[in-house]
Amino acid sequence: MIADEAARAWTAPDIDAIRAAAARLAGVATRTPLLESDLLNARAGRRVLVKAECLQRTGSFKFRGAWSRLSALDPAALARGVIAFSSGNHAQGVALAARLLGCPCVVVMPADAPKLKRDNTAALGAEVVLYDRAGGEDREAVAQKRIAAGGLTLVRPYDDPFVMAGQGTCGLEIAEQARAAGVAEADVLVCCGGGGLTSGVALALEAEAPGLRARPVEPEGFDDMARSLAAGRPESNRPGATSICDAIVTPCPGELTFPVIRRLCGPGIAVSDAAALAAMATAFLRLKLVLEPGGAVALAGALERLDGGSDAPVIVLASGGNVDPGMFARALAQGEG
Amino acid sequence: MIADEAARAWTAPDIDAIRAAAARLAGVATRTPLLESDLLNARAGRRVLVKAECLQRTGSFKFRGAWSRLSALDPAALARGVIAFSSGNHAQGVALAARLLGCPCVVVMPADAPKLKRDNTAALGAEVVLYDRAGGEDREAVAQKRIAAGGLTLVRPYDDPFVMAGQGTCGLEIAEQARAAGVAEADVLVCCGGGGLTSGVALALEAEAPGLRARPVEPEGFDDMARSLAAGRPESNRPGATSICDAIVTPCPGELTFPVIRRLCGPGIAVSDAAALAAMATAFLRLKLVLEPGGAVALAGALERLDGGSDAPVIVLASGGNVDPGMFARALAQGEG
Repeated sequence: MIADEAARAWTAPDIDAIRAAAARLAGVATRTPLLESDLLNARAGRRVLVKAECLQRTGSFKFRGAWSRLSALDPAALARGVIAFSSGNHAQGVALAARLLGCPCVVVMPADAPKLKRDNTAALGAEVVLYDRAGGEDREAVAQKRIAAGGLTLVRPYDDPFVMAGQGTCGLEIAEQARAAGVAEADVLVCCGGGGLTSGVALALEAEAPGLRARPVEPEGFDDMARSLAAGRPESNRPGATSICDAIVTPCPGELTFPVIRRLCGPGIAVSDAAALAAMATAFLRLKLVLEPGGAVALAGALERLDGGSDAPVIVLASGGNVDPGMFARALAQGEG
Repeated sequence: MIADEAARAWTAPDIDAIRAAAARLAGVATRTPLLESDLLNARAGRRVLVKAECLQRTGSFKFRGAWSRLSALDPAALARGVIAFSSGNHAQGVALAARLLGCPCVVVMPADAPKLKRDNTAALGAEVVLYDRAGGEDREAVAQKRIAAGGLTLVRPYDDPFVMAGQGTCGLEIAEQARAAGVAEADVLVCCGGGGLTSGVALALEAEAPGLRARPVEPEGFDDMARSLAAGRPESNRPGATSICDAIVTPCPGELTFPVIRRLCGPGIAVSDAAALAAMATAFLRLKLVLEPGGAVALAGALERLDGGSDAPVIVLASGGNVDPGMFARALAQGEG
C-alpha cells in the first residue's frame, strides 16, 4: 500500500461536499446533455435517457473528479505536483486539471493501455511513465518512488472524497435533467469500475431525486461490485479474466465507495463484451455518440433488459468515449445485433 | 414548379418569428451543447467551439424547421397530412414532427439516399416514395401527383419562413452559449445546402449576438452559395459534380434564403470530400461526436483554416450525424490526416 496518512481519516462525501464540488466545476466542466432518441426508444420498448458524459472534457466523466480534487489542494501542494495511476481516462482528467492549474503531473500507465489514451495524456502535458502490467510490475512501487522523491500528491481514481464528490456532480445534473424530462422514478445504470462515479451519483440522487436509484453495471468477469452487493461484503475478481472494457476492469470495490453503494444502490448488472460492442453501434446509429466499451456497458444493460426489464423509463450514464478507431470499427462491423 | 400560391407571398422571418418558433420548440427539441475540446483547440491553434446539432432529435438540425412548420399548421391541414422531398435529414425531421402531431406524412426520397436515412424515415412512420435521381425522374412531378390527390401540404426544406425560423432557433442557442463561453466576436461556420440553416442562424445572430457572423460552408462542386455571394446574384452549380456530402448538394441558393445570406453573412467556403472525412475523424477522436460528411464541412473549414485563418476563436455548426457505418469506417481509416 502507498503511504497516505490523510486517506485513513477520509470518509465518503456528503451532499454539501458534492454541491461544493459543483460550484468549483461551474464554468470549467461541460454540462453534458441527457439525450433521448425516438428510434432508440422504439427499439428498447421504453424510454432510455442517456447522460452523454463522453462529451465531457477529456472524453470521460473523470475530469470532474480530477478537477474537484486538484482545485481543493493548497498552493504548495499544487506547486509540488500530482501523480496518478490509470489506464487512461483518470489519467487524462488529472492531466488536464493539472495543466489548467499550472501544476506538474506524472501519470503511471500500463504499457498496454489504448494508444489514444496514452497519446492524449502526454498531449495534455503529463509526464507518462509506462509499466508492464502483464509482466507483473508493481505500479504502486513505481509511483511510490516518485512520490518519495518529489513530494507529489497522489490523486486516487475513486477512493477519495473529493474525487467521489466531483463524480457526484454528474448525479446533480441527472436529477435536474430527469425532472425536466418528466422522469421522477427510474433506475440509473452507471458504468462501474472502483465505484467512484456510482457512489457519487448515488449520493447526489439520494438528496436531489429520491425516486432515482443508481445501479452499477460492470463487464462480465469484472463484476466484483455486483457480487459484493449480493454477498454483503467486498469480493474481488478472479484473476485471469479479460475484457475489452479497459476503463472499468478494477480488482475490487473501493473502501470508501462500497459502503455508499451498498446503502443506496440497486443490484449490480454484468454485461458481455459482445453486448458492449452492440451498444456502441446503437450509440453510433441512434445517438450520434462515440462510446468506448467501458462507457457503453450501462447502455448495453438497458438494451438487453438486464436490469429486470420493466417498461418503465431507464436512465443510463454513458461514461466515456476514448476508443481507438480499430475497436470502434469492430463495433460498427458487428452492428446492433 | 409545384403550384404553391402561399409561397409566393412569403417573406423571410424576422427575429420575432424565430423567437416564436423557439417557444413552440421548447421541451420538444433538444438544446444541443456547444462543445470544446482542449486537444482540438491545440491542434487547430485556436478555440474551436462546436454546436453539436448532430445530437438533435433525428440526428440533424432539420427537426427544428420541420416542427416549426408543422406546429404552425391548422388542424385541418394536419389531418390531411404533409409531404416532403429530401435526401434524408429533412425527411426524418418531417417524419418525426408528423408522428408527434399525429399527422400523415409522405416523403419522396432519391433511391440512392443513404440506407440509414431511408430506413429511419420509414421507421418514424412516414410513407417513403423512392424516385430515380440518376435516371432523371422528376421528384416534383412525383410529389405533385400526391399533393393533388390528397390535399397534402408541401413542407419545403428551406424556402419557407417557418422552416427558416425553426433553424434560426439554433442561432439563438449559439448566441447564448457563445456568450457563456466568453466569445463575443467570431465567425460562425455553417454547413450550407439551400441556406435554411445559414439564413436562420444569421437572422438570430443579427438580433442576439451582433459580434457573431455566419458564413456558409459547402462541398467543392456544390459551392453555389459561395459563388452567388461573390457574384452578388444567384448562381447554380454546374451539372455533373459529385460529393459524399449528400445532405447539402442542392442545385442553387433559395429564393428566400439568399437575400438574407447576402445581407448578413461573410464569404462562403468550399471544402473537399477528403477534408470532410478528416473532420469526421477529428470529431470522433476529439469530440466523441458522430458527424456525417455534410455535417462535418464547417468543422473541416475551421480545421483547414479556409475561413481566412486568424487565431481568433471560431464557432462551427456540426449539423448532422446520419451516416452509414461504411462511410464512417472510411473516415476512421483515413484518419485526421
